[in-house]
Amino acid sequence: MGRVVLGMLGLGTVGTGVVRLLTQQKNLTLKKIAVRDSTKVRDIELPCPITTDPAEVLEDPEIEIVVEVMGGEQPALDYIRRAIDRRKHIVTANKEVLAKHGPELFEQARKKGVAIFFEASVAGGVPLISTIQKGLEANEISSVAGILNGTTNFILSSMEEKGEAFADALKQAQTLGFAEADPTNDVEGFDVAYKLCILSALAYGRFVKPTSVFRQGISQITPSDIAHAREFGYRVKLVGSTRATGDKLDVRVHPMLVPLTHPLSNVSGSHNGILVTGHAVGEIVMVGPGAGQMPTASAIVGDIINLSSALQLPDFASYFQNAIETEWADTAPPGDWVCPYYLKFSVSDSPGVIGQIGTIFGEHNISIQSILQRGTAEPGASVVILTHAVRNSDMDAALGELTGKPFLKELASCIRIYEPPRDGAN
Amino acid sequence: MGRVVLGMLGLGTVGTGVVRLLTQQKNLTLKKIAVRDSTKVRDIELPCPITTDPAEVLEDPEIEIVVEVMGGEQPALDYIRRAIDRRKHIVTANKEVLAKHGPELFEQARKKGVAIFFEASVAGGVPLISTIQKGLEANEISSVAGILNGTTNFILSSMEEKGEAFADALKQAQTLGFAEADPTNDVEGFDVAYKLCILSALAYGRFVKPTSVFRQGISQITPSDIAHAREFGYRVKLVGSTRATGDKLDVRVHPMLVPLTHPLSNVSGSHNGILVTGHAVGEIVMVGPGAGQMPTASAIVGDIINLSSALQLPDFASYFQNAIETEWADTAPPGDWVCPYYLKFSVSDSPGVIGQIGTIFGEHNISIQSILQRGTAEPGASVVILTHAVRNSDMDAALGELTGKPFLKELASCIRIYEPPRDGAN
Repeated sequence: MGRVVLGMLGLGTVGTGVVRLLTQQKNLTLKKIAVRDSTKVRDIELPCPITTDPAEVLEDPEIEIVVEVMGGEQPALDYIRRAIDRRKHIVTANKEVLAKHGPELFEQARKKGVAIFFEASVAGGVPLISTIQKGLEANEISSVAGILNGTTNFILSSMEEKGEAFADALKQAQTLGFAEADPTNDVEGFDVAYKLCILSALAYGRFVKPTSVFRQGISQITPSDIAHAREFGYRVKLVGSTRATGDKLDVRVHPMLVPLTHPLSNVSGSHNGILVTGHAVGEIVMVGPGAGQMPTASAIVGDIINLSSALQLPDFASYFQNAIETEWADTAPPGDWVCPYYLKFSVSDSPGVIGQIGTIFGEHNISIQSILQRGTAEPGASVVILTHAVRNSDMDAALGELTGKPFLKELASCIRIYEPPRDGAN
Repeated sequence: MGRVVLGMLGLGTVGTGVVRLLTQQKNLTLKKIAVRDSTKVRDIELPCPITTDPAEVLEDPEIEIVVEVMGGEQPALDYIRRAIDRRKHIVTANKEVLAKHGPELFEQARKKGVAIFFEASVAGGVPLISTIQKGLEANEISSVAGILNGTTNFILSSMEEKGEAFADALKQAQTLGFAEADPTNDVEGFDVAYKLCILSALAYGRFVKPTSVFRQGISQITPSDIAHAREFGYRVKLVGSTRATGDKLDVRVHPMLVPLTHPLSNVSGSHNGILVTGHAVGEIVMVGPGAGQMPTASAIVGDIINLSSALQLPDFASYFQNAIETEWADTAPPGDWVCPYYLKFSVSDSPGVIGQIGTIFGEHNISIQSILQRGTAEPGASVVILTHAVRNSDMDAALGELTGKPFLKELASCIRIYEPPRDGAN
């Protein structure tokens, strides 16, 4: 392949990793890097000039590929639009921009005859995007599900190992650099939601609006939930999934009890693990570092190399353009979901409590699979119930009815239990 | 993409799966299938004529891609050569042909300007090849290791679950269709050796001769080895690996004790599981169906689709041609390997036996990690020893010396223990 000239936007942790890997590539020349603060001391010998004026990258006619590693929605979105407009190919790790503006950007790229590569936007170093795009091309994908956020997986793993409370595990993750000062994006599931929007587009040809993704974080998970789950043969994980259900998509991120025998339950620490289900192949599992400087840089530079070696082919971009529709996908209403549940109640000591819960559950088509009652130090008891698969709307109705009962002190936990995908269920 | 015309060689289990998946692809036309026996009753409605004359596929100017699913070295090799000579692109699942003749075939393809796609040749439905070729492009790969044969993994899993002897587990695998009537190819590691030759070419740019791969099968593994391994926190797996050690490759397949905490030990039944180590990404694990009609067909049809959509680009083949050298790689001599060992001896009751073994081991730089001695029904005892990492040549010398001692009745087992890759070791 001939010499290819690149420009880069951003030079943070990931950008620095990209510069490191690029020095090992003889045919790639990084010409200029646009940064916000040119006075910042950087942990690397720069191979090219830096500038605070993005136009020096976006409007340089010699630059063929723009590598965007700034992160965040703006000004990254504007810069990407400008670069595409100038017919530059894009390599980006920006899940937020793609999730919120994917249809528009891919459409613009199609019109301008350029390609957008984004392997690093989901699952860091794990080449999940190329696996779905190319490796499983012959398959109708029915489900992509997994652990897509290393920070929350690290926190849940520490909580399990050390019996720590969420707040303590979070603090430790922040000290170790696995969580940000403001952890909302990770802990409340926004990061996973963005990734699911991108995965939906790849698997089903349509983007999902980030606001349409059902989203629940891990801050309510307690050490006792984790211990109970273990007792029943499960591990608590933050699972993101996008599934085809008829003409709608079921897209969500929330904590789940995953069976200890399931591959996702063995994904520990800051790793990501993803399960892709296709009609011909069955299930494929991929596990690896979902974040971090060099794994993410590995995905970005992989994209740069693949793109660069294709640049010699005339009109090659169409080969890499995804068949993604400009309309957003419809999502299935959560009330229709079906899955088993783990529930923990705090109840008073009055006789017949279990009977009353069982009766209300029965009236709402909820069948109990396991039950565990333990007396507590204060008067009263804690009751843990695992149900068989139940419709979400039935569970909501039953919990609503229970909440009014005098014997119920508190619904302490309500966590869904993972089941392998079934047609239109879970 | 425009309409692309295909021809196929072979119509066995995998070929039938390919025909099934192709019916879902509107732009691909299967024109003719060459078979050995045209009178055979087939479990599928044929979408095109079949012929017993391969020339009708190989020499049809309208056919752009030849799909080879015959298996075996000959006549598949000759047909592939003829197809490339006629400037047809190749999609093949044939690990034996690629392993034995890869350098020559890739060179011929380069000269003729065509591409060879072979995703199905390794790990069945798991898109391992495209992951190494494209997904991890920015990485220097240092190791590819894993469970690459579903038949032997199924047998070892059954032996563990049911405490069965090898012969019984093999018989059951044959009844269930997981093993062939002549199981040599799988059980003695030939199949894995072929796959390692291909993986070496992808990871390091040079093919390894199948005869240079160190190869040891699983027929000597006993239920007691499996039970002992479990007791010490390991599972017995047939592991294939190819590692870069200086300018030579360390390529081998043999049984190993894999720690229960390691992802490869959780790959059960007929699944494949592969661990790829790259300098930027760290470790990626992929798990999925390593064989079977539809998973293998999924890989083949994925190749066909990717190849077909590239056909519109002029001179596209160079993009897919691998930078593989025509010379064969040198392999590292097994004597230099370093790894821990599991050993099981049958010894007589004479006093000081353990002391004598320990002394001989000490003289050969072998340090003992764990030891377990149990009296047996007959006079004598069984001694199980786990060593720390040791040079293969030291172990050979020590075992040679022990064999001459009167107290040693039998060296019942000698299995290597898996350790994560280190520089130039294990």
